[in-house]
Amino acid sequence: MAKSPRVLILNGPNLNLLGTREPEIYGATTLADIESGCHACAQELGLEVDCRQSNSEGELVDWIQESRDRHDAIVINPGAYSHTSIAILDALQAVALPVIEVHLSNIHQRESFRHRSYVSKAAKGVICGFGADGYRLALDAAARLLAAGRSG
Amino acid sequence: MAKSPRVLILNGPNLNLLGTREPEIYGATTLADIESGCHACAQELGLEVDCRQSNSEGELVDWIQESRDRHDAIVINPGAYSHTSIAILDALQAVALPVIEVHLSNIHQRESFRHRSYVSKAAKGVICGFGADGYRLALDAAARLLAAGRSG
Amino acid sequence: MAKSPRVLILNGPNLNLLGTREPEIYGATTLADIESGCHACAQELGLEVDCRQSNSEGELVDWIQESRDRHDAIVINPGAYSHTSIAILDALQAVALPVIEVHLSNIHQRESFRHRSYVSKAAKGVICGFGADGYRLALDAAARLLAAGRSG
Amino acid sequence: MAKSPRVLILNGPNLNLLGTREPEIYGATTLADIESGCHACAQELGLEVDCRQSNSEGELVDWIQESRDRHDAIVINPGAYSHTSIAILDALQAVALPVIEVHLSNIHQRESFRHRSYVSKAAKGVICGFGADGYRLALDAAARLLAAGRSG
Amino acid sequence: MAKSPRVLILNGPNLNLLGTREPEIYGATTLADIESGCHACAQELGLEVDCRQSNSEGELVDWIQESRDRHDAIVINPGAYSHTSIAILDALQAVALPVIEVHLSNIHQRESFRHRSYVSKAAKGVICGFGADGYRLALDAAARLLAAGRSG
Amino acid sequence: MAKSPRVLILNGPNLNLLGTREPEIYGATTLADIESGCHACAQELGLEVDCRQSNSEGELVDWIQESRDRHDAIVINPGAYSHTSIAILDALQAVALPVIEVHLSNIHQRESFRHRSYVSKAAKGVICGFGADGYRLALDAAARLLAAGRSG
Amino acid sequence: MAKSPRVLILNGPNLNLLGTREPEIYGATTLADIESGCHACAQELGLEVDCRQSNSEGELVDWIQESRDRHDAIVINPGAYSHTSIAILDALQAVALPVIEVHLSNIHQRESFRHRSYVSKAAKGVICGFGADGYRLALDAAARLLAAGRSG
Amino acid sequence: MAKSPRVLILNGPNLNLLGTREPEIYGATTLADIESGCHACAQELGLEVDCRQSNSEGELVDWIQESRDRHDAIVINPGAYSHTSIAILDALQAVALPVIEVHLSNIHQRESFRHRSYVSKAAKGVICGFGADGYRLALDAAARLLAAGRSG
Amino acid sequence: MAKSPRVLILNGPNLNLLGTREPEIYGATTLADIESGCHACAQELGLEVDCRQSNSEGELVDWIQESRDRHDAIVINPGAYSHTSIAILDALQAVALPVIEVHLSNIHQRESFRHRSYVSKAAKGVICGFGADGYRLALDAAARLLAAGRSG
Amino acid sequence: MAKSPRVLILNGPNLNLLGTREPEIYGATTLADIESGCHACAQELGLEVDCRQSNSEGELVDWIQESRDRHDAIVINPGAYSHTSIAILDALQAVALPVIEVHLSNIHQRESFRHRSYVSKAAKGVICGFGADGYRLALDAAARLLAAGRSG
Amino acid sequence: MAKSPRVLILNGPNLNLLGTREPEIYGATTLADIESGCHACAQELGLEVDCRQSNSEGELVDWIQESRDRHDAIVINPGAYSHTSIAILDALQAVALPVIEVHLSNIHQRESFRHRSYVSKAAKGVICGFGADGYRLALDAAARLLAAGRSG
Amino acid sequence: MAKSPRVLILNGPNLNLLGTREPEIYGATTLADIESGCHACAQELGLEVDCRQSNSEGELVDWIQESRDRHDAIVINPGAYSHTSIAILDALQAVALPVIEVHLSNIHQRESFRHRSYVSKAAKGVICGFGADGYRLALDAAARLLAAGRSG
Repeated sequence: MAKSPRVLILNGPNLNLLGTREPEIYGATTLADIESGCHACAQELGLEVDCRQSNSEGELVDWIQESRDRHDAIVINPGAYSHTSIAILDALQAVALPVIEVHLSNIHQRESFRHRSYVSKAAKGVICGFGADGYRLALDAAARLLAAGRSG
Repeated sequence: MAKSPRVLILNGPNLNLLGTREPEIYGATTLADIESGCHACAQELGLEVDCRQSNSEGELVDWIQESRDRHDAIVINPGAYSHTSIAILDALQAVALPVIEVHLSNIHQRESFRHRSYVSKAAKGVICGFGADGYRLALDAAARLLAAGRSG
Repeated sequence: MAKSPRVLILNGPNLNLLGTREPEIYGATTLADIESGCHACAQELGLEVDCRQSNSEGELVDWIQESRDRHDAIVINPGAYSHTSIAILDALQAVALPVIEVHLSNIHQRESFRHRSYVSKAAKGVICGFGADGYRLALDAAARLLAAGRSG
Repeated sequence: MAKSPRVLILNGPNLNLLGTREPEIYGATTLADIESGCHACAQELGLEVDCRQSNSEGELVDWIQESRDRHDAIVINPGAYSHTSIAILDALQAVALPVIEVHLSNIHQRESFRHRSYVSKAAKGVICGFGADGYRLALDAAARLLAAGRSG
Repeated sequence: MAKSPRVLILNGPNLNLLGTREPEIYGATTLADIESGCHACAQELGLEVDCRQSNSEGELVDWIQESRDRHDAIVINPGAYSHTSIAILDALQAVALPVIEVHLSNIHQRESFRHRSYVSKAAKGVICGFGADGYRLALDAAARLLAAGRSG
Repeated sequence: MAKSPRVLILNGPNLNLLGTREPEIYGATTLADIESGCHACAQELGLEVDCRQSNSEGELVDWIQESRDRHDAIVINPGAYSHTSIAILDALQAVALPVIEVHLSNIHQRESFRHRSYVSKAAKGVICGFGADGYRLALDAAARLLAAGRSG
Repeated sequence: MAKSPRVLILNGPNLNLLGTREPEIYGATTLADIESGCHACAQELGLEVDCRQSNSEGELVDWIQESRDRHDAIVINPGAYSHTSIAILDALQAVALPVIEVHLSNIHQRESFRHRSYVSKAAKGVICGFGADGYRLALDAAARLLAAGRSG
Repeated sequence: MAKSPRVLILNGPNLNLLGTREPEIYGATTLADIESGCHACAQELGLEVDCRQSNSEGELVDWIQESRDRHDAIVINPGAYSHTSIAILDALQAVALPVIEVHLSNIHQRESFRHRSYVSKAAKGVICGFGADGYRLALDAAARLLAAGRSG
Repeated sequence: MAKSPRVLILNGPNLNLLGTREPEIYGATTLADIESGCHACAQELGLEVDCRQSNSEGELVDWIQESRDRHDAIVINPGAYSHTSIAILDALQAVALPVIEVHLSNIHQRESFRHRSYVSKAAKGVICGFGADGYRLALDAAARLLAAGRSG
Repeated sequence: MAKSPRVLILNGPNLNLLGTREPEIYGATTLADIESGCHACAQELGLEVDCRQSNSEGELVDWIQESRDRHDAIVINPGAYSHTSIAILDALQAVALPVIEVHLSNIHQRESFRHRSYVSKAAKGVICGFGADGYRLALDAAARLLAAGRSG
Repeated sequence: MAKSPRVLILNGPNLNLLGTREPEIYGATTLADIESGCHACAQELGLEVDCRQSNSEGELVDWIQESRDRHDAIVINPGAYSHTSIAILDALQAVALPVIEVHLSNIHQRESFRHRSYVSKAAKGVICGFGADGYRLALDAAARLLAAGRSG
Repeated sequence: MAKSPRVLILNGPNLNLLGTREPEIYGATTLADIESGCHACAQELGLEVDCRQSNSEGELVDWIQESRDRHDAIVINPGAYSHTSIAILDALQAVALPVIEVHLSNIHQRESFRHRSYVSKAAKGVICGFGADGYRLALDAAARLLAAGRSG
């Protein structure tokens, strides 16, 4: 029996505060809620997911590097590092996996320094503005991409 | 029995050429394929969809204005007008419907004049880079938003 | 008896939604209200007015071109096309009529992409921020300009 | 019997030279002509006007501050200070009166450093390009605003 | 006998006013003069030409799309849309025909917002500043390109 | 017995309106309150203070120049002139006294044209965002600087 | 008896080198000197302080997050991260505590890339240029803010 | 006997401090030295000079306006107002006299905000970097210009 | 018999390498090929041509200056100096001959520093993107211009 | 016998992936290869080297700080942190050692956000584009600098 | 008897055309006129002058380098190279002579690319806008500088 | 026996002044010293070198072009032309040799207009900041590149 494709779900700085931080922008869902939602959704889609969060740019780079041998795709919400980290961009380009970038809010409606994402330069696709639902959409997209890759 | 929510699916300039134009960027799927995919997907999600395409900025504005009394949400791929049309932005802001912006390619990896989208300022969320699959994700997101609005 | 001077009153995209769209910015007056107000005001000033609205840049260009032989002045609220249409600017410069630009809101207090108006480069004068009353002021100014031109 | 609303008419630097300075841009009307025109026009509109001119930014700030208890609206042609004075902007924002900004010429057709007006950020509306006639239009608009405020 | 190659000659907004509009910049030749000149010149070069003009961006996009099956090359004077239309750029890139861009005036000597042409990104070559004679040069160049393509 | 060091406290344009102007930004304390607070605080710190306010850039320059022989330090809230006056910067650099710049609000959270202060280039230190309390902090800092200078 | 308010004092990268690094800019005081000065000053002000320093952006984010339940205010000298870290800005905005930003030098007199501080967007107030004395001023300001909050 | 041409010599803000202020940039000559040097030099050249200095932008504008009927040329060192005053530029353009701009230092070697001078847009010529000697050169140039004008 | 008009054909730096340098951009034709093509084409058009190439900006300026008395028009491909030489622009403006600028490639599709040409400010018209054929088109245009000048 | 000078060789984020990541840009050499090459080369040059790599900005800052007492020079390839880390710049400026910056690729030929390196502001010299050979050149340069310092 | 100081007078590209080129900007005086005027003026001032003109940037650099041992000061009108030549700037900085920059026209009133002069960064002083008279003023200033240097 | 590879060593404007010009930036070594050092170093590395210097952009272009048939690599210190010469860039790209760019000083620590080098776009690698030693490093790198190319 074929092994389920594995997806690394990475959350960047301050996303561990979710549900408590500026709920008018991000809603009341916690990161634990999102991660359990991802597990449920992954099961339906025939995926396995591995969820991690870090406030450290270096640790995120470490995990992305390690995913090369352990995962088949990456779903990443890089939080504030989207706009400042070329190191994460380089790591994502180095591991040759499909990457899906997720943002809870529509970053194009926030301060101008949040409009540019370095990570987008390494992402297959970007999903923003749908709150926690964005992760489900990202897993759905990942499943399709992986299926297409497998059969293609 | 409750009436299905209606979603207007708008495609902007040159999307009628889909499947024939720069396939290395946009894939071989035609607009007809996308629209029939949307109908199928909508049925599963309990939505009704109305699909239109125009190369004319004014006609897109007209259709958006008319949607106010006829639809419950808008999924729009504004094509080149994303980057140049404040008129479409104004029309979307005027009709108080949830808007989901879709792009076939990841616009952040193309020429810099394609990085800014006026439409994003009026959109609930943005999905880009997943090719034709982006419409399915958008409808899925729309269904959730409408269900949340209904029950909320 | 001298024929009344004729003024073309042009309204650009989304102004047909007036009275329903973002009333906190634009007020509750409809376009029909504005146009009937213009007719009343014109009569007092000894002018004839011709009112048109379009969401299409090309149609606005057509109408401006036709005004050359039919009108003596143009009052134009170009809406969103103020900021993006060099074609309308060119048309206004080509028909050698006095042009008065009107904006309902004070565009200098809105998003920065609304601060520049191409149309201002072809306008005799600009009036913004007075809501529907701006059209009355524009007709008043037009009457003076035309009287001065006639007697001058 | 109700007291007439009082309007402060302020003219900034070099407007005392009017009628002598670059007549191809500003016309031959003197400041005295404009002020007597304002008095006549005010009488028709049921307004009282108070006219002052200064070349000093500080004196203009003083007068704006004093208007808080003495006037019901301000019509201001800030001349060159439009483009350089944040102090005048602050003074206008501090006295909570309706402000109408007037420019004799269409500033958008002059050097680019004249395109931005700080004063516009505090103005209800802006009128430019109609020469001396702009003051009459501004008083007309002021009368309407004050009447609306009174009855509203 | 070989069929003559067909060239679509497109003129954008306000070019229908040619000969009447700002003659110090564009000269007194009318669009009809230019089009009959093109027919004459085409005949000499063994080409067939099809001439169209529109003030509407969407209609120009439509015609460019249709040219794919009907023409062998496009000569386009996009007028004001040169500087603002990404939709026309996209249409030209989508139909894989050789494109020659023509401007009557030398756009590099006009206002800075006329210096950039989106259309140039899709053009084989650009000819500007030669007035009506530019069309003749463009047809001449087109004939060479088509001959080279045929024999190449 | 040693003479108390003397500190000039300068307030720029519109600060005389304090307590009445936009209280949500600046609070309800008046300038008289601030100045009497400064006198009280100065007494505790063994300083003498001299308080002045002007709406005139030139008068502020005059006072700064005169302070050279009369004061030992300057505490200045330049108001709007922070962002526009190179003349005040030059005057502060010319009198070789320690300068402390105070702003009531955190200017970095306001409009972008308030982010740059020319005065900061001549200031020993800057204190902003603490409302009227900022003057007390500035005097405290001044006392330390002067004591250090004296003993150093 | 009321518990003393607790203030977290955070120092960012390279501040552990204080007293040894570029003394002409930062003086000879060490970080240990500053921290013991803060403890002494806090005691006088009836505050408790908690001092930490890290060279790691992620660790600073962690500590800011933890302060939500442990402290009543934050005094932060973000060092070089002032200018590059949106993650620290986000963390400060997420914990709803009053924040006071301190810089030893007057950053507005250094290289232009040190003029902008992301942290200022989350700070109640900013104090810069007073060397080690800035921490004492910040604690003084914090005591006032906390007392005002308590009594207000 | 012909009346000597009269030249107004204007010095702007902080030039009254000359000889005491930053001598490494401006030298030790006082303003009185410069003015008496100008009188001596004028006598040799057959000119009469009138010397004034003000720290007030408004007063400088006043004096420029008055010079129209009293002087034949203006030599102006606008100091800091060179870079910020459009009002002085407008006054100089309004009085149709030849204007010579002088700067003691070479402003192109100082901070970038001192590189642009609004006054240069109204000046016949500019002389900078020669210290007090610049005034003598300016008077020399003025004498030539006036002689040429007289004989021309 | 009328003398043939003489056209100076100037080629700038590195064009002597033509046919060997980056043939994917410039084609395999050598400069000698182009020059003999120009002679042939000139003969047909009744022109005389004079062909020169230099890698030296100063020598190109010299030749342009000398052309004033020797030629009737200039066809110039300034190569890299298009983008950096104001001296060549000045020389072309000084000799009052019609100038036609030619580029082998479409410079608007290359690096952004090749998009601006100083030479365009002095050129009657510009032809780019047609490879060696551009010279033939330029000569053709020159012949027309000279004929029009002669008969006009 | 004199102790060998010690050189710290630091490699920043993602350089641990070397030899596997985008080999067309960086070559197939691994970091281990580079480090053993450095040891060999150092021995020849009479240097001792200490090699470290980290993905964490904070850890790199820590190591640079510690080098002050342990090393005589630093050779650093800051990877992505070159372009974003002011903290590393500050650390390098704080430890007063000679710094040599190395990049494997020629960063001036990559994306524009890789053209600026903060680290260059603290470096004695920069070597880029020679792949793994750059480290050898850097050690060679370091040996010379240290010998010159010793003998100088 | 003391040897007269020697001044090198350099004129850059196209200044050899003086008197024939755009006389409305530069006047009718030829370069020969200017040079003989310089000789006459130098004699009066006790200077010797050496006049040269070149269209070649490299030749101007050569001459500046040679002046180190032959001249005591340089008067240079760099023409178009003012705005583009860092090589001339470097040469002027390398020969440690006083440099006076002259421009015939007021470059601040011309195209914006003529506003910046690299040469100004190496000049003691700048004189512009006085036509040929500027050279006389420059020699006068040079004589003073040299006398001051001699006696100082 | 294999012929030694030949390297062209080119020095640009003002480098002939080396050892006399601004020694605090460039050191006291003369160009002759550098060139003899290069010969010595080349001998060790089995290379032949050919050294030239010119102040003329055009002459440098000529030499680069000629190197195509005479040399195997180019080491170039373009001096000021690094920042202004697209012609040299084009010449280097045209001759398909490996290019190594050398700067004596670390150009990233000098004026901002020296930060960008056009030549870097054509260089295999760049070495800056090591003074005369940079040439030795460049030859060393060249020897490796040529050896790799030979054996590769």
